[in-house]
Amino acid sequence: MKKIINIGKVKLGAGNIVIQSMTNTITKDIESTVAQVKELAKAGAELVRVSVPDKESAFALKEIVNLTPVPIIADIHYSSEPAIIAIENGVSKIRINPYNMNKKELSAVVKKCAEFSVPIRVGVNKGSAKDLKTPRELAVSALDCAHLIEDMGWDKIVLAVKSSDVRETVEAYRTLNEITDYPLHIGLTEAGTEKYGLVKSAIAIGSLLLEGIGDTIRVSLTANPVKEVYAAKQILQAVGLDKNFVEVVACPTCARTQIDVVGLAEKIEKITENYTIPIKIAVMGCTVNGIGESKGADFGVAGGKYRSVIFKNGEKLKTVNNSEIENALIELIAEKING
Amino acid sequence: MKKIINIGKVKLGAGNIVIQSMTNTITKDIESTVAQVKELAKAGAELVRVSVPDKESAFALKEIVNLTPVPIIADIHYSSEPAIIAIENGVSKIRINPYNMNKKELSAVVKKCAEFSVPIRVGVNKGSAKDLKTPRELAVSALDCAHLIEDMGWDKIVLAVKSSDVRETVEAYRTLNEITDYPLHIGLTEAGTEKYGLVKSAIAIGSLLLEGIGDTIRVSLTANPVKEVYAAKQILQAVGLDKNFVEVVACPTCARTQIDVVGLAEKIEKITENYTIPIKIAVMGCTVNGIGESKGADFGVAGGKYRSVIFKNGEKLKTVNNSEIENALIELIAEKING
Repeated sequence: MKKIINIGKVKLGAGNIVIQSMTNTITKDIESTVAQVKELAKAGAELVRVSVPDKESAFALKEIVNLTPVPIIADIHYSSEPAIIAIENGVSKIRINPYNMNKKELSAVVKKCAEFSVPIRVGVNKGSAKDLKTPRELAVSALDCAHLIEDMGWDKIVLAVKSSDVRETVEAYRTLNEITDYPLHIGLTEAGTEKYGLVKSAIAIGSLLLEGIGDTIRVSLTANPVKEVYAAKQILQAVGLDKNFVEVVACPTCARTQIDVVGLAEKIEKITENYTIPIKIAVMGCTVNGIGESKGADFGVAGGKYRSVIFKNGEKLKTVNNSEIENALIELIAEKING
Repeated sequence: MKKIINIGKVKLGAGNIVIQSMTNTITKDIESTVAQVKELAKAGAELVRVSVPDKESAFALKEIVNLTPVPIIADIHYSSEPAIIAIENGVSKIRINPYNMNKKELSAVVKKCAEFSVPIRVGVNKGSAKDLKTPRELAVSALDCAHLIEDMGWDKIVLAVKSSDVRETVEAYRTLNEITDYPLHIGLTEAGTEKYGLVKSAIAIGSLLLEGIGDTIRVSLTANPVKEVYAAKQILQAVGLDKNFVEVVACPTCARTQIDVVGLAEKIEKITENYTIPIKIAVMGCTVNGIGESKGADFGVAGGKYRSVIFKNGEKLKTVNNSEIENALIELIAEKING
């Protein structure tokens, strides 16, 4: 069993996977930071981290914490001073990287965390720990730091071991998961640009989640952080850990395709993107796999040359002219939503 | 050891992972189909499958095979007749789904395959095999079909078991990998639209490849099939199975960021997207992880307020004004390429 760690109102280690992201505003620009935290929360982030590079940013946290709807995490490097101010100003978690903080500074942070009951995430990054050569060394170094923090008198800890390499990251987390009961924050570091970073993050985070590893996830993309939250949601949906969404399964189209599958699938996905009820809709270009997939979905269409078959709950519902497919599916969605 | 199966000039089961895609043109429209096969091959597809729904499409294959640079696979359902014509007209592989073909038709296809030494892919899709409830049943049904084909006198076989569900697909392939030595074609079926389909495919294919499972991959997207090839390449790159590309690692930016990381990373990625030599470039917004990641890369930049540090081969090379970063990186890329 995992230890359960409370980050404000959010529990880590309790079984559900918590989505988090990080602002990229100037933290001390309170207005911009609050706006971005709200935007991230609206998109689905349950925790938001902000970088706290100096005292001014740390003092700004008081207002940021008060004006935002999700627990705020302070990202701290090198010095204990911003961490101490951040804790006094209401943050719900501190993230430190043991390779960017000496023992004296760490001890001051830990003491303050214990006093205010604020959990610490130990986030080891390969990029700042070049003496660590193997995934096992990354994992052990994170746990060593947790033991150090325990010795300093505090045990509300979350662990992370990130690399920019998918295989290395997956192996490091597998090891870490074996050797500790602390909740794990999973993700890649410096994953990359929007598309390639998404592919790397999906593989690393997705394969760990499929193995039951991970308590909170952050997708790092070199892009607007709102895209990180959408990507995180899609990863959870893809591995079946978030079923409260409208899933459009659609065929890749081929010479057998009789209807505009791409347009129809994209349109249905767009219409339903903010729905939080579980519906599976199949948009299939022909009957080869169409009938089967449509039967596996709540409802769907299998395209024909002029008329197409609409399925519902595994049964053929009706045949409609191809110009009427979209409306038929929209009607079925509305019916499902209205109970 | 895997059995090695020759698909024309391409070997499956020999250790490297072969990228394939499928046309979505009307096959009998020879001009469009040839153009798309060429486009897919140029993007990186090593095998291309075409749907062969009728005799006219099958006869069109003669010209398509002659005019294209990669082995062509004929996708056949229900009837043996198009398969037989396709084989006589030079295709390098036949794909059948045992749930869409009776034994008599299958036997005729197998006989022709043996005569012309054309391998068969048995592609079981959950969508067309609703009586198969578990991943194990999917895997066993594919192997049963392979045994049937062996009994009919042919053993050049490739196997696939696809579902639109990530977890089910991964588990089915794990089982299949344990029980057979035939090469495996891996992928999801009806994965979905461009973005969500990419996330699902990256997780399913990526986690299997990380376990050493898979000999050829197809990413199915409800989108232009060229995007499937790019996605396949990115998946191989992300799991370290294709090192011949320019990898841009970049930080997700935060309050510490001093330079335009997003713009710079996207630009470098764009400039180098068709390069096939292995270079790792780090674009980092500050020095927290920047120096470490830059050292892990061939070269890179760690941003500062006005001037930034350019690293090469783990060492600080020079400091440049922020307006000069892009040119400094481009110079280093050119230097690397020219030897």
